[in-house]
Amino acid sequence: MTHADHDQSPEPWLTNPFDDDKLKEECGVFGVIGTADASSFVALGLHALQHRGQEAGGIVSYDAEVGFQQARRFGYVRDNFTSHKVMETLPGELAIGHVRYSTAGNKGQTAIRDVQPFFGDFSLGGAAIAHNGNITNAVALRKELVERGSIFQSSSDSECIIHLMARSMGRTIPDRMEEALRKVEGAFSVVAMTRTKLIGLRDPLGVRPLVLGKVGDGWALSSETCALDIIGAEFVREIEPGEMVVITKAGVASHFPFRPAKSRFCIFEHVYFSRPDSILGGRSVYETRENIGRELAKESPVDADLVCPVPDSGTPAAIGFSLESGIPYAMGIIRNQYMGRTFIEPTEQIRNMGVRLKLNVNRALIKGKRVILVDDSVVRGTTSRKIKEMILDAGAAEVHFRIASPPTAWPCFYGVDTPQREKLLAATMSEEEMREHLGVDSLKFISLDGLYRAVGQAKRDNKSPQYCDACFSGEYPIAPSDQITNGFVLKTAAE
Amino acid sequence: MTHADHDQSPEPWLTNPFDDDKLKEECGVFGVIGTADASSFVALGLHALQHRGQEAGGIVSYDAEVGFQQARRFGYVRDNFTSHKVMETLPGELAIGHVRYSTAGNKGQTAIRDVQPFFGDFSLGGAAIAHNGNITNAVALRKELVERGSIFQSSSDSECIIHLMARSMGRTIPDRMEEALRKVEGAFSVVAMTRTKLIGLRDPLGVRPLVLGKVGDGWALSSETCALDIIGAEFVREIEPGEMVVITKAGVASHFPFRPAKSRFCIFEHVYFSRPDSILGGRSVYETRENIGRELAKESPVDADLVCPVPDSGTPAAIGFSLESGIPYAMGIIRNQYMGRTFIEPTEQIRNMGVRLKLNVNRALIKGKRVILVDDSVVRGTTSRKIKEMILDAGAAEVHFRIASPPTAWPCFYGVDTPQREKLLAATMSEEEMREHLGVDSLKFISLDGLYRAVGQAKRDNKSPQYCDACFSGEYPIAPSDQITNGFVLKTAAE
Amino acid sequence: MTHADHDQSPEPWLTNPFDDDKLKEECGVFGVIGTADASSFVALGLHALQHRGQEAGGIVSYDAEVGFQQARRFGYVRDNFTSHKVMETLPGELAIGHVRYSTAGNKGQTAIRDVQPFFGDFSLGGAAIAHNGNITNAVALRKELVERGSIFQSSSDSECIIHLMARSMGRTIPDRMEEALRKVEGAFSVVAMTRTKLIGLRDPLGVRPLVLGKVGDGWALSSETCALDIIGAEFVREIEPGEMVVITKAGVASHFPFRPAKSRFCIFEHVYFSRPDSILGGRSVYETRENIGRELAKESPVDADLVCPVPDSGTPAAIGFSLESGIPYAMGIIRNQYMGRTFIEPTEQIRNMGVRLKLNVNRALIKGKRVILVDDSVVRGTTSRKIKEMILDAGAAEVHFRIASPPTAWPCFYGVDTPQREKLLAATMSEEEMREHLGVDSLKFISLDGLYRAVGQAKRDNKSPQYCDACFSGEYPIAPSDQITNGFVLKTAAE
Amino acid sequence: MTHADHDQSPEPWLTNPFDDDKLKEECGVFGVIGTADASSFVALGLHALQHRGQEAGGIVSYDAEVGFQQARRFGYVRDNFTSHKVMETLPGELAIGHVRYSTAGNKGQTAIRDVQPFFGDFSLGGAAIAHNGNITNAVALRKELVERGSIFQSSSDSECIIHLMARSMGRTIPDRMEEALRKVEGAFSVVAMTRTKLIGLRDPLGVRPLVLGKVGDGWALSSETCALDIIGAEFVREIEPGEMVVITKAGVASHFPFRPAKSRFCIFEHVYFSRPDSILGGRSVYETRENIGRELAKESPVDADLVCPVPDSGTPAAIGFSLESGIPYAMGIIRNQYMGRTFIEPTEQIRNMGVRLKLNVNRALIKGKRVILVDDSVVRGTTSRKIKEMILDAGAAEVHFRIASPPTAWPCFYGVDTPQREKLLAATMSEEEMREHLGVDSLKFISLDGLYRAVGQAKRDNKSPQYCDACFSGEYPIAPSDQITNGFVLKTAAE
Repeated sequence: MTHADHDQSPEPWLTNPFDDDKLKEECGVFGVIGTADASSFVALGLHALQHRGQEAGGIVSYDAEVGFQQARRFGYVRDNFTSHKVMETLPGELAIGHVRYSTAGNKGQTAIRDVQPFFGDFSLGGAAIAHNGNITNAVALRKELVERGSIFQSSSDSECIIHLMARSMGRTIPDRMEEALRKVEGAFSVVAMTRTKLIGLRDPLGVRPLVLGKVGDGWALSSETCALDIIGAEFVREIEPGEMVVITKAGVASHFPFRPAKSRFCIFEHVYFSRPDSILGGRSVYETRENIGRELAKESPVDADLVCPVPDSGTPAAIGFSLESGIPYAMGIIRNQYMGRTFIEPTEQIRNMGVRLKLNVNRALIKGKRVILVDDSVVRGTTSRKIKEMILDAGAAEVHFRIASPPTAWPCFYGVDTPQREKLLAATMSEEEMREHLGVDSLKFISLDGLYRAVGQAKRDNKSPQYCDACFSGEYPIAPSDQITNGFVLKTAAE
Repeated sequence: MTHADHDQSPEPWLTNPFDDDKLKEECGVFGVIGTADASSFVALGLHALQHRGQEAGGIVSYDAEVGFQQARRFGYVRDNFTSHKVMETLPGELAIGHVRYSTAGNKGQTAIRDVQPFFGDFSLGGAAIAHNGNITNAVALRKELVERGSIFQSSSDSECIIHLMARSMGRTIPDRMEEALRKVEGAFSVVAMTRTKLIGLRDPLGVRPLVLGKVGDGWALSSETCALDIIGAEFVREIEPGEMVVITKAGVASHFPFRPAKSRFCIFEHVYFSRPDSILGGRSVYETRENIGRELAKESPVDADLVCPVPDSGTPAAIGFSLESGIPYAMGIIRNQYMGRTFIEPTEQIRNMGVRLKLNVNRALIKGKRVILVDDSVVRGTTSRKIKEMILDAGAAEVHFRIASPPTAWPCFYGVDTPQREKLLAATMSEEEMREHLGVDSLKFISLDGLYRAVGQAKRDNKSPQYCDACFSGEYPIAPSDQITNGFVLKTAAE
Repeated sequence: MTHADHDQSPEPWLTNPFDDDKLKEECGVFGVIGTADASSFVALGLHALQHRGQEAGGIVSYDAEVGFQQARRFGYVRDNFTSHKVMETLPGELAIGHVRYSTAGNKGQTAIRDVQPFFGDFSLGGAAIAHNGNITNAVALRKELVERGSIFQSSSDSECIIHLMARSMGRTIPDRMEEALRKVEGAFSVVAMTRTKLIGLRDPLGVRPLVLGKVGDGWALSSETCALDIIGAEFVREIEPGEMVVITKAGVASHFPFRPAKSRFCIFEHVYFSRPDSILGGRSVYETRENIGRELAKESPVDADLVCPVPDSGTPAAIGFSLESGIPYAMGIIRNQYMGRTFIEPTEQIRNMGVRLKLNVNRALIKGKRVILVDDSVVRGTTSRKIKEMILDAGAAEVHFRIASPPTAWPCFYGVDTPQREKLLAATMSEEEMREHLGVDSLKFISLDGLYRAVGQAKRDNKSPQYCDACFSGEYPIAPSDQITNGFVLKTAAE
Repeated sequence: MTHADHDQSPEPWLTNPFDDDKLKEECGVFGVIGTADASSFVALGLHALQHRGQEAGGIVSYDAEVGFQQARRFGYVRDNFTSHKVMETLPGELAIGHVRYSTAGNKGQTAIRDVQPFFGDFSLGGAAIAHNGNITNAVALRKELVERGSIFQSSSDSECIIHLMARSMGRTIPDRMEEALRKVEGAFSVVAMTRTKLIGLRDPLGVRPLVLGKVGDGWALSSETCALDIIGAEFVREIEPGEMVVITKAGVASHFPFRPAKSRFCIFEHVYFSRPDSILGGRSVYETRENIGRELAKESPVDADLVCPVPDSGTPAAIGFSLESGIPYAMGIIRNQYMGRTFIEPTEQIRNMGVRLKLNVNRALIKGKRVILVDDSVVRGTTSRKIKEMILDAGAAEVHFRIASPPTAWPCFYGVDTPQREKLLAATMSEEEMREHLGVDSLKFISLDGLYRAVGQAKRDNKSPQYCDACFSGEYPIAPSDQITNGFVLKTAAE
């Protein structure tokens, strides 16, 4: 069932100039306990995590006097959670929040009730839950729950968790949450709350990030450290794979409810999803990306006049490439700071109008130069072609693409929005075919081992990889059950 | 849990000038099957039923191609369900809708998710349900459902029905609905739909109205006949107390799932709730009200110059009073057609500003005259006092109040918003005390028998009253279980 | 030049059910001096005058500290001038306001800058002006002003006045206003303000109304007395034709700047424009209308069962007709209180849907009855036909129309929105042709003399009529210069 | 007079993180003739010029069928001029547009009627005009015009031009424009239009930029070349100082109506205002800024580990500094791409919350490092202090500021929003005092000669400077008459 409850519609614009040709993180989560105005801290944290989900956001707070309160909106955090009118409806010292992208299938159809956190009123008190990741057996779980009489409020599979909790016989909410999540397969970093507890939990493989911070006398949970910085919180540590932390005013209690497993953190968080000022696995994301650029320069050098980033996500790798190669770094492509919606196209058509709205070539700089363009990834390849055309129109002598990730050849089922496999350029073409398709003088991707080196490993352990790199390798650490039911074919030995 | 999902807030204005001093019907329901654009018919029907609930409205439709669709909004039907943008999201030949007031306890806190129709996705297909009335054992039902793991979306007790249906083992949705409603106590006129059926049902006593109409090749269910008129439907008959009709394209099937009981239709529908152009129990509501005025003139005559209605609900009884008494009818009070919100009160205060926004005395007409004011009811008495002051300010020689209903001394628990008993003027004062309190020359209410005569009975059958008149008599035909649990004391023998 | 400055568009709905088939007063004006929060009084006054113009409204205030302030909006006063946010931008003890309809030619194209009051910053201080009426030589004046270098802000001809004032050599603003208005031909009741003065002025014939009231220590000017009532002001007197009052804190100074002329007040104000609770020429408008009904019953009696008004404007005359004829008065047509916008018409078409949205026939009452319908006027006749159809559909035995004004056969050029002459039913048909066209059993209009009797005259003085009745008689007391230039043909001797 | 015509208020947020501590260009202008959908081209051009004015924008178009059309809005071009609903109200092959900042005095009080282009309906046909710059004798001009009866629509001094044109006896609009502009003193780059002509004009000194482009068969005028790029137009040439071009379908006619003077282009356009991808005086703005960084590195070297830009305006100079000095370039400060409004500050206060919303320090990168921060200018110095604190909080060993412009010690009166002189840090402190005030290890500004070298001059010609550099030097090439009347003291010999 779809809903037209709102005139509010998801903003039709995107901040990254080529967002339609990027993989998209589907969510960010944030929670705070033990400080006044917890929801204001959560709003700030979500603002810092906005890159993880721009479509909608929600906050749930709890205050003894008014109980649980909730606000969920389409659009940016800055547009929805900054007015006194809204924030004063969310009082208390305990709050959690969520920002989200829509999933691939639902674009433009998301209803406000699909926006997390989800709330359930149990016989032993209410709980709210927000989730980053994806449940890979959600279809089967949902079918069973409906048959037993649960009524789903949303089309979101994350709602399964709250229904499993409602039906659990557990005597505390953390007990019920443990019980519920043991039935769930997939990747999930969860932030939840009861009237007195802030709860954080990562799936056994720890695919998605979740960190713990200290803010004044209270505590914070966040998808990334950059959101701790914005509220002046101190970064304490990462929640461990398979760990559940239950935080009260008394402190942080740690549990390990799942069967132990080897960590498989998402390597693409290093490449693109996380903000460059976050710290992942003890390493600055910015420096990892600069390292990727250095590795690329070593693996695939080329003689040229300028190294230019495709703004803004290619910037750190371009700087690394320049530092390693000695070729000067320059801003050959300028991004319009006022990015935005689709303009009406004049009858007299403008070539590559979509790109021009967002980027402009620094013509006087580029003319006659051999240019290395550094980008973070190639997904469909549509915008790479347009950028190449703009650069050549401006009179570049040569165009060389260097890509800060291996070819993206497989969809992600763990909370990232990817096109279907056949839409991924690298799923159907070799590197040379891609080079021809893009029409550039050279095209090189970093190798999978090069990427592992950039994140500090000697090399990829092919027997038991240190990270989840399924989008590059096709090796899925968690079986995508619903997808397989739905016809998805796993990698064959031949591939 | 409350929700700040919306900037949309219930309209802070009321159409009846003294709505805050009236009893309020809490709901109107409407459904259509078997015509193209069913939801447009429903929108029109709800517009005609707007007087039964002005706070919010909702429509659910079903179309084979797009499934169930839903739109729910705060505010008037005319403001929400008239744009192509909204109505084209509600395609199909089957649709139901609902308009509602908030209940007393929830004023200003209603969330959009409290707005009906409610929808549930069952294992055997979805169903939507809209409800006029009140469930008197809802608190107990809800507690039990939550303990078994049902998660309520709303604070509305009507949601119990859909959860009972979800948990039923019945093999069809009508079966499940029967089963669910047999567990429910109270007054309820229900309109529901599945993918192929429109269902109507009244509680065994038939407290709230529900009528059947024929529109082209299809059928309509409505709270009142005036909403059949607006869509050009023919009035077929009333749904009988305890009857459940299941309507498909093939026709109307009638069931009587409940134990038979004697009808106790709400007599206040005749006095105030229903529109004067509706037909109730085979009688024109307008003529019943004119009859009430005639009875009043017989029971409580008074020598005077003019009979004036308190607009607009006192008008038919005032006409009847004038016709019976021969005293000329006149518009002594003029209603501002552009009623509205609260204006900013100037520092230099205006006496009775709230009333002046809505009414003005026809000063030149009233001056020096002995005036009979006919009103439909006295609830708190606050506005009656203000009107009396305005009339005296304008120079009236005498003011006589004649009230078209008996003293309202008991709250309603069957779907009408009434103040707590101690706020009802007639619960704490005798007629003479009320006259003094209001400061008028005379005050007379119609007798309960007079009212029964006006609706066509010889007199009230005190052993087994023909109508529910609990608000006047304190005799409740259905035990208000939750209320009693909550401390409400039923009428004692002494009263 | 047109403007798309605003998403704000004029409300597409009308409060009178047949507003598209009525003459429309184009404006109401209101001003207050000498009270705190003058703009709040003005907002209330404009609310009471809303029937004179529903499309837009504006208020200008003056406060020594912040100077002149202005707010102008499309839509109802209650929707625009009731929030603290807006009203606190309009401080001071002196304010004027205006409500307006669009003029015939401009429908749907009105820009916010066409909304009055108009403001001009002169070398000797600013002034604001609001105007009810129409300037009959505006085209010529505007042409001359533009040639001399004046730049018009609006398409409104009333703006001429402010430009004439700007160019005047007068040493005070009242002097300039006198000088400006002596160049202007037409009907105008003006309310204006400087930093210290509230000014009121009526054209020499006094075609449009303007009254003076006392509110606390201050003064008010208003189009009608009903707007004095709402603010608790005492009605002092009417401003006389050709009089200019200059009101300061010190009191009211009266001037007569124009050549004296015999008064020609608009008789249609009595018939329809003014509110029934206003006082015009010392007479209650309600009683005048009741008189019209009595005169009609004398002039054109008919044997029937019921006298029903076409709500709401036909009501007082219907009451008068009933009182005179002894035929019972009844509400045969019920008006939907929630009037509104256009709904989406379902595919399966509903007959006379537009009318059904606003009115419903009281079927049970009307069936088999001979019905007299009393309406205030017939303009195009389109809605009269639809009402007749509804009444016959409901089973009436006979339908007799009685109209409370003479046939409307000529357009008004003095501030009332009338269709072009050829669209007026009475301009092209005799009474009998109209009866046939409408398909009713009888149709009678009140005679011009009957109307004059109802307003208290013995008869119309045909040599020198006591009122402007050009819309009935074609005798225009002020030459419509621009219209004649534009091809309008005055009444010939033959007519 | 101020206006509350709109709920629309200027967006309370700024895109540049420290916009409140930057000089702001007040306007950008754009015009197109000879192409279908001219207004869509103008919307795109204004989007590319958004950095020159973010508060509001307007477009006027002309089409033979519908005449002049206009739309003016607060907020971004992308939010206002991208819908079909708005753009189809602006048809035709000729259009001009304008983006604006509010001027210092008027912040938060701008009314929509202050938004350009201004339009005047003259006796010989209408004209619209948009203006970048400032009229230095506007107060005197306005006073004289008002005395002669002109009524100003806006508080904008640019409106003088249109009134001067209205009163001119010139027989064509270009004639009138010439005549009007000869009475005007100041800096002005004007784009204007009649029904058939697009007109461009720069003041005799050419203080503000204006360029000519060719788009298909038509022509474009723009403040900067980057806006030609977005519509795919070819950059033809700059309009010369004192030149007036009158463009019709037939081509471009050039006039020089003013007395010849030596060019004094604004040097700050090179430093900050213009976009890095624009071309000014034949030079890439990006390369000029990289040059400034190189000059800075030569003039004020310092031993350090990293060169970091203050994003985004310090970036090109930081790259230049790094290339010249060999010290690695790094992104030590990360800008939040989702900049925005003010969040509610939690009770438990966050240090430097305003800055944190917009920037975050790359803590892992900065820790223990000696950092050179390159910024474009220091105005009030408030944000420089906060950035320094954030960098030190993150553990930097040393902080060195290098500023890509000389000390800003004088206000601009030529179309740039500057604080009053006493608010400019450099107006009251020496370089060493500023260093102490900011609390950094070193602080160096580029020298005025260094800046002249970076733009390609050997040095500044102190007798007759090649540029307007009044903000640095206090040497005003055009007497700021109104300001002097208002008490501003020009530089004395002593300074």
